[in-house]
Amino acid sequence: MSAAILIDGQPPLEEARALHASERGFHYGDGVFETALVRDERVRFLDDHLSRLAHGCKSLNIQAPRRAVLQADIARLSTGCAMGILKIIVSRGAGTRGYRPDAHAGEPTRFVAMYPALPRAPARPIRLRWCETRLSRNARLAGIKHLNRLEQVLAQAEWRDDRIAEGLMLDTEGELVSGTASNIFLLRDGMLATPDLRFCGVQGVMRAQVIRAAAGLGIAVVEEPLWPHDLEQASEVFVTNAVRGIRPVQALGNLRWSETTVACRLKKVLEC
Amino acid sequence: MSAAILIDGQPPLEEARALHASERGFHYGDGVFETALVRDERVRFLDDHLSRLAHGCKSLNIQAPRRAVLQADIARLSTGCAMGILKIIVSRGAGTRGYRPDAHAGEPTRFVAMYPALPRAPARPIRLRWCETRLSRNARLAGIKHLNRLEQVLAQAEWRDDRIAEGLMLDTEGELVSGTASNIFLLRDGMLATPDLRFCGVQGVMRAQVIRAAAGLGIAVVEEPLWPHDLEQASEVFVTNAVRGIRPVQALGNLRWSETTVACRLKKVLEC
Repeated sequence: MSAAILIDGQPPLEEARALHASERGFHYGDGVFETALVRDERVRFLDDHLSRLAHGCKSLNIQAPRRAVLQADIARLSTGCAMGILKIIVSRGAGTRGYRPDAHAGEPTRFVAMYPALPRAPARPIRLRWCETRLSRNARLAGIKHLNRLEQVLAQAEWRDDRIAEGLMLDTEGELVSGTASNIFLLRDGMLATPDLRFCGVQGVMRAQVIRAAAGLGIAVVEEPLWPHDLEQASEVFVTNAVRGIRPVQALGNLRWSETTVACRLKKVLEC
Repeated sequence: MSAAILIDGQPPLEEARALHASERGFHYGDGVFETALVRDERVRFLDDHLSRLAHGCKSLNIQAPRRAVLQADIARLSTGCAMGILKIIVSRGAGTRGYRPDAHAGEPTRFVAMYPALPRAPARPIRLRWCETRLSRNARLAGIKHLNRLEQVLAQAEWRDDRIAEGLMLDTEGELVSGTASNIFLLRDGMLATPDLRFCGVQGVMRAQVIRAAAGLGIAVVEEPLWPHDLEQASEVFVTNAVRGIRPVQALGNLRWSETTVACRLKKVLEC
């Protein structure tokens, strides 16, 4: 699966020789990223993605590229794209040896790529599993979509069964956080609940859209600490991701759900 | 500060175009690294570094390069090097989009670089500070020198005062773990104590050498949970790092130490 790529606004001469040897994204995971859905040449929720990217850069004290510059890159790769997956990485760029960011360092690296996406399959309810890999807690990094993603890599390496669409992750204290690449919502007593992500997890773009859309439908959403046993009391469960949209869940271990009403209403509102 | 670099055994044509655009080290921090001291064309504690690298690869299920292959790269860069800093990175290499390691993916990336090192300054006792950035706990990743190093980057960004040589880091529960780029030892009642690193931190090569050398000198070493208040009871404190060796500590906040006897004995034994 090859991608169209721009690095600092230029296509690399060769994909195999694209990044600087001293790239701090490579040496330390020193950066942030976004993954977005492109449909009919338009990036879904682009404003949300660019805002989160800017927020993440600010949190890591990386100079964020100007929005217009990113938009120009994105426009160039989106032209003629009926369906695609856009990835943006902003890292601190090439630096000298050592963890400390160099005050006199060069520009951050701006990586923008468009990957081909298959047309979306019909939204059948999916099956989940529990991952053994835990998410570590650190309020300083919570919510940010940074490049330190070994926990997600190890979690996704735990299974190969295509019938399992996503794995749920607990943090090291056993609290429910998210899927490996999605946020999770439970319906209980007519209200939606989702983990508050105060210690870990990513503040998903689709998660924020769902919270807004639910309010519009008159459905209350609470962001709070959740635990595995909360799933047992849920009448409906769904996971969210900017590329895959809202996916109702039918099974997790011995648990089964047949209800998908709220997920379907939100899917309709958000066209995802 | 430029470096001599080999990527998969070949010097890149340009430093600015060295790594694959789909490099998983860049996208996810999916790999491990080593930093070692080179003196008179020889890598200090090379066996320890290569063993830790292999152990880290195994833990992440990355295929480690053969030792002879790494040694050939290292020999090529060490020739004629009176004093240098060797960095080795092994990442999972270029992959397809998504966290899951591709079972049919290509070879891991083998990055070996030699950086110029200034002659070592005389070993004056150093001053430390406390870092506000905390280390997250995750036993699954504890001890491994992996590429997810945002916490260390943020911690080192906290100060610019050259008189402070190192910052100490606590984990998110307040336990003492290490310096940003060093392990720490305290002397109490004639015994050395060092954090056990069961939840986070890096199993330092120099740390292991110190534990071995102390045993040879008849000094007991305990690896155990330590807390900031343990520093108040210490009669001597030093930090260790494979490149910088053993550094006695003279001050941390309001705490002062004048004793350096054990550090100096260990420095002599380990010639560091």
